[in-house]
Amino acid sequence: MRATIVTIGDEILIGQIVDTNSASISRHLNGVGIAIGEKISIGDRRDVIVETLQRVMRTSEVVIITGGLGPTKDDITKHTLAQMFASELVYNEAEGEHVRRLLERRGIAFTELNRGQAMLPECCTVLHNAHGTAPGMWFDTAEGGVVISLPGVPFEMEHLMEDEVLPRLKERFELGTIVHRTLITHGIAESILAERIAAWEEALPDYLHLAYLPAPNIVRLRLSAYDVEKEQSESEIAAAFAELERIIPDNIIGMEGSTIEQRVHEFLISRGETLAVAESCTGGSIASKFTAMAGASTYFLAGVVSYANSAKCNILGVDNEFIQRDGAVSESVARAMAEGARKVSGADYAIATTGIAGPTGGSELKPVGTVWMAVATPEKTIAVVRNCGTDRSQIISRASAYAIELLYNELKKL
Amino acid sequence: MRATIVTIGDEILIGQIVDTNSASISRHLNGVGIAIGEKISIGDRRDVIVETLQRVMRTSEVVIITGGLGPTKDDITKHTLAQMFASELVYNEAEGEHVRRLLERRGIAFTELNRGQAMLPECCTVLHNAHGTAPGMWFDTAEGGVVISLPGVPFEMEHLMEDEVLPRLKERFELGTIVHRTLITHGIAESILAERIAAWEEALPDYLHLAYLPAPNIVRLRLSAYDVEKEQSESEIAAAFAELERIIPDNIIGMEGSTIEQRVHEFLISRGETLAVAESCTGGSIASKFTAMAGASTYFLAGVVSYANSAKCNILGVDNEFIQRDGAVSESVARAMAEGARKVSGADYAIATTGIAGPTGGSELKPVGTVWMAVATPEKTIAVVRNCGTDRSQIISRASAYAIELLYNELKKL
Repeated sequence: MRATIVTIGDEILIGQIVDTNSASISRHLNGVGIAIGEKISIGDRRDVIVETLQRVMRTSEVVIITGGLGPTKDDITKHTLAQMFASELVYNEAEGEHVRRLLERRGIAFTELNRGQAMLPECCTVLHNAHGTAPGMWFDTAEGGVVISLPGVPFEMEHLMEDEVLPRLKERFELGTIVHRTLITHGIAESILAERIAAWEEALPDYLHLAYLPAPNIVRLRLSAYDVEKEQSESEIAAAFAELERIIPDNIIGMEGSTIEQRVHEFLISRGETLAVAESCTGGSIASKFTAMAGASTYFLAGVVSYANSAKCNILGVDNEFIQRDGAVSESVARAMAEGARKVSGADYAIATTGIAGPTGGSELKPVGTVWMAVATPEKTIAVVRNCGTDRSQIISRASAYAIELLYNELKKL
Repeated sequence: MRATIVTIGDEILIGQIVDTNSASISRHLNGVGIAIGEKISIGDRRDVIVETLQRVMRTSEVVIITGGLGPTKDDITKHTLAQMFASELVYNEAEGEHVRRLLERRGIAFTELNRGQAMLPECCTVLHNAHGTAPGMWFDTAEGGVVISLPGVPFEMEHLMEDEVLPRLKERFELGTIVHRTLITHGIAESILAERIAAWEEALPDYLHLAYLPAPNIVRLRLSAYDVEKEQSESEIAAAFAELERIIPDNIIGMEGSTIEQRVHEFLISRGETLAVAESCTGGSIASKFTAMAGASTYFLAGVVSYANSAKCNILGVDNEFIQRDGAVSESVARAMAEGARKVSGADYAIATTGIAGPTGGSELKPVGTVWMAVATPEKTIAVVRNCGTDRSQIISRASAYAIELLYNELKKL
């Protein structure tokens, strides 16, 4: 079983939007055992759409298209498909009524353009879009494959995949099994890691394919298996990763999706302890990483974004003397912020950051990217300074990651 | 001039990562007048890479490849290209030394795998990667085109595009001009907008192509022109958008890249006024939106993430009576948070949010997604309640957007 994903839209080709749909569709298809051979993005041009679809229909049983289903003139996917499959557009009463009701609830008038969205190729199976105004379409091809057209709005596409497309694919085709498992490592460079685990890699069964995915501070190790017996391959992968935990015990964060903030989250919940943060240069980014996780309210007491010096003094109780003597970006201020956050919130632990996110504000002694970070625990306060790069958004994200890692390393010792 | 972008990596095909590189490369190429005909993502398989490249080299003068240049066994792009261009890999002394020094600075040992990264096809022009260990490669094809291979790490790819690829493309080819300009509208549905501006759209010069890009709360209107005289088309687009400002004066946020928080940012800087935020359910997301913008420190005084009720009382001075009587998610608490944030920080304006981000904590009267938001100004405090959806991350992002819009609508009146 081979699938191709075709995303349509000039906005993708000119780089105005990042295509996130194709990644999501890939995960869904892999989940039911369908491998993706190719992803293609093309513009809103009839000839290119036809040529591309005809090419990929020859090599793929499943073709999934997104985009170009909106109500306006620049949306041409539906008309192109109708023409390709030599089918008339006919008004679908049920879909028309659905669109009318949906717009009514939002207080939007139903126009001729919306009515046009319920004009659908006669030969297709209509996939009901409960969350939007553009229905999906399922075409059976003469070669025994399927071409599926979905709206480009990620939220609507997502629901259509889950509710309409996957159940139909499972019914229609005899599907195999694909297994991917990923282990997340930190604190070890990709090339060193590869050497350290070379013998382990060599000993892997042939059908398991290993991939290295480096990212700042972490390397993800993925094992993939195609067309396998699910339980057996899963248990062989689990055994292989268990072996890795013996080889690099200090460098493993967890499985796919694991982040250091998630480990801190789990740790604090399991111990019934609490956290506060005091952020200057990271500006709320650390707080939002924790509060994005469901259940954060059980341990996350408070965050203070003390951007102004007055906020550092008034809210966190930082001694203004420190700021005058050492500057706002200094060890003394980072320590006082962490201790102040513990005190004002009553939390067991606190993380603090103060640095220069740029682009201005740097000096020779403290260039842009200089960040002091501190962690206060019931026993002590530790502080480190790190250079977090040169670009504002990178500095904010690295400083957040390093500061959370500082707490994680303390918690690991307990 | 036509370009194709080919991103290589199983991690893209299985949806483990979202490919952001191709959008960035598209913007760079459009910026120097090169249009993208197609983007393709394929896996780490030699036969597929060769077949795809041979196909696209026939139709594109410029082919840009990313990915597959790492030091480990699953990275095969370089070997495949060397074979395709019938060229030996030879050790590049300068690149080898660069990699050695780069790793040394990070405290990482230089291994045989790293040495391998400086083994490069003899026939290519090496593109120096100042920020990483995998050099880029530029191949001239027999047909007069170019094939350019770049590392997949976004940061490294970005620098290579700017410093090495674009200058060489400009020197090598006679390039045209592409102009894209986008106007951002808010508060009007796509279909209604299309009707309202139908006559305007009809009157556009033929060479200007209009596209609608809807997103939650906003619709982007893009005008594109290809192979045009830059200044003339820019002034015609400016005139067309000026005309739109007369047709939908209340619905325009600004040009491409404009966000409501950016308008607030500009507004506060120009008036020399200041801002504080008090967040419960949005958990630092509003603070981080403002502090992500360079220059925020001129007006952003403080943020408080008062997740625990005790933090609402102790830091923001919310009356515990309100919490007991109305609950933490209530109009009285939202108002008190906004007023407390103004007071504790000394800011002119404050934004507050308190709501139920879920997945638990909802009730019949206050289901998950219920968010009270308030804005305090020197004259008054206003509060509204909105339902922000059902999914935690969606609730956080919508509540943040609505709360910032609440302040924006107040500032617009001044």
